Amino acid sequence: MTTPALRGLRLTKGHGTENDFLLLTDPDGALVLDAADVAGLCDRRAGIGADGLIRAVRSRALPEGVDVLAEDSTAEWFMDYRNADGSVAEMCGNGIRVFVAYLEREGLVEPGAAVAVGTRSGVRRVWRTGEEYTVDMGPWRMPGGAAAIDQGYDVAVVVAGLAGARAGLRVDVPNPHTVVALPDVAELDAADLGPAVVVEPVPPAGTNVELVVPLGEEVLDGEAVGTVRMRVQERGVGETRSCGTGTCAAALAVRAWAGRGAPDAWRVLVPGGEVRVRVVDGDRVELTGPAVLVADVSLR
Amino acid sequence: MTTPALRGLRLTKGHGTENDFLLLTDPDGALVLDAADVAGLCDRRAGIGADGLIRAVRSRALPEGVDVLAEDSTAEWFMDYRNADGSVAEMCGNGIRVFVAYLEREGLVEPGAAVAVGTRSGVRRVWRTGEEYTVDMGPWRMPGGAAAIDQGYDVAVVVAGLAGARAGLRVDVPNPHTVVALPDVAELDAADLGPAVVVEPVPPAGTNVELVVPLGEEVLDGEAVGTVRMRVQERGVGETRSCGTGTCAAALAVRAWAGRGAPDAWRVLVPGGEVRVRVVDGDRVELTGPAVLVADVSLR
Repeated sequence: MTTPALRGLRLTKGHGTENDFLLLTDPDGALVLDAADVAGLCDRRAGIGADGLIRAVRSRALPEGVDVLAEDSTAEWFMDYRNADGSVAEMCGNGIRVFVAYLEREGLVEPGAAVAVGTRSGVRRVWRTGEEYTVDMGPWRMPGGAAAIDQGYDVAVVVAGLAGARAGLRVDVPNPHTVVALPDVAELDAADLGPAVVVEPVPPAGTNVELVVPLGEEVLDGEAVGTVRMRVQERGVGETRSCGTGTCAAALAVRAWAGRGAPDAWRVLVPGGEVRVRVVDGDRVELTGPAVLVADVSLR
Repeated sequence: MTTPALRGLRLTKGHGTENDFLLLTDPDGALVLDAADVAGLCDRRAGIGADGLIRAVRSRALPEGVDVLAEDSTAEWFMDYRNADGSVAEMCGNGIRVFVAYLEREGLVEPGAAVAVGTRSGVRRVWRTGEEYTVDMGPWRMPGGAAAIDQGYDVAVVVAGLAGARAGLRVDVPNPHTVVALPDVAELDAADLGPAVVVEPVPPAGTNVELVVPLGEEVLDGEAVGTVRMRVQERGVGETRSCGTGTCAAALAVRAWAGRGAPDAWRVLVPGGEVRVRVVDGDRVELTGPAVLVADVSLR
């Protein structure tokens, strides 16, 4: 399946809450990887298979990397993220954790130190605590503004398998999300995220949709922590086992609905595992979760 | 994701018409690979991903291998096939081609020579012609007997997306198949093989279901060759991109429907590519198709 030019190429397969990636190092940006190459590698049956491919390139070797170096001169490595169909993507909250685990393992960054990563959404800081990685996901906003937050929603959402239209709250992280609260896990299980979800009015750039069930709060280490169960339908992809920005949107919406005094710390349970989301200073959000390197791969 | 005992394990990923496999060599049958290990490796997001795992073990190192050596003392290598859920399987017409390509590449058999492979269905002969491999799939039968062949069917089949019940002909290769002829490719495309297919009366061991559209005959190298387009729903799995025994069943059913003078040679077009099926001496069937080794994998 591989073109002769890719024969012998070495990659690593890894995942973060079962959002999975192929990673490779190309320090000087010398490798020609067109959309068909990426789609072939990410094909789960004819190729190796992954949700996306991440190329580690020195920022100075890419035009968009030079831009991030102007923002932060320590952002030595650029995360060149491609979707499974070969299209270029900006950022991936699960992918960037796996990317830094990979950079550490390859000896390309100092293990355990905070790392500034160049992405098409700008520089993102990532640091490791134990086996987990935390990403500063930057600022978020609710495009419906104070009116939507007061009302608790700004769109109507129709999901197959669920009766009637549901209230949805839009959250940009900064990619677009729409979060819908369901009363219980039985409804969450009944939703069919195979067909398209209808959001009205239609957000201009489309939207990812998160169905969430708030599961209450508890005090851990002296801090209130809320828990949310979530399923996600990713824009243009369908249901996935996890979505990093989606878990942030889910926590932010449930926190907004809880009102004044709601926790800043949240556990979000997704089909592929569990992550933690923290709202910092009210205006930015940090995502913490696992990163697993599964296997090294050498193309034939 | 891997248990410590599997760390560093080397495997190869390959596919035959996009039915994909993980292959490994364990000459003395020393490796403990329980169902959870196999399911973990075959998990497409948390593991590497494949339809099944094939372990190459010397026949003399396994009880079922000793049985095949009694049948054919040259069957040095046993194909220990496991399904993606970790359960043990008997044979796989696409997998055995990839298995022999792997044995050749690893230097475990003489390249290009016919190979006797031990399987849980007995010894299967495999030989290479150019880039393709041919498998002697052994005898087949139509359990409905002469009455079913004369009538053209022995079961009624209801498929989502298709109006009414259709006539199906059962074929054992030796695993159970039910083949349904459709009049055109538009109907083939309209069928929804996601939901269960209802076959009446229900075959005792369940059945794979092949939907086929005969596309006519042509003369190639002086021999009549029929062409069939096919989609398949595998028992307990759902729709797949190819099924080796299913392509044999499809060719055998269309040949039976064509009656006296029908070709012995068939091309079968599946979503994952193309194979050729040949009926030999009327009572056994050979399957020819590609085998691709995609990548070598080393577990972390």
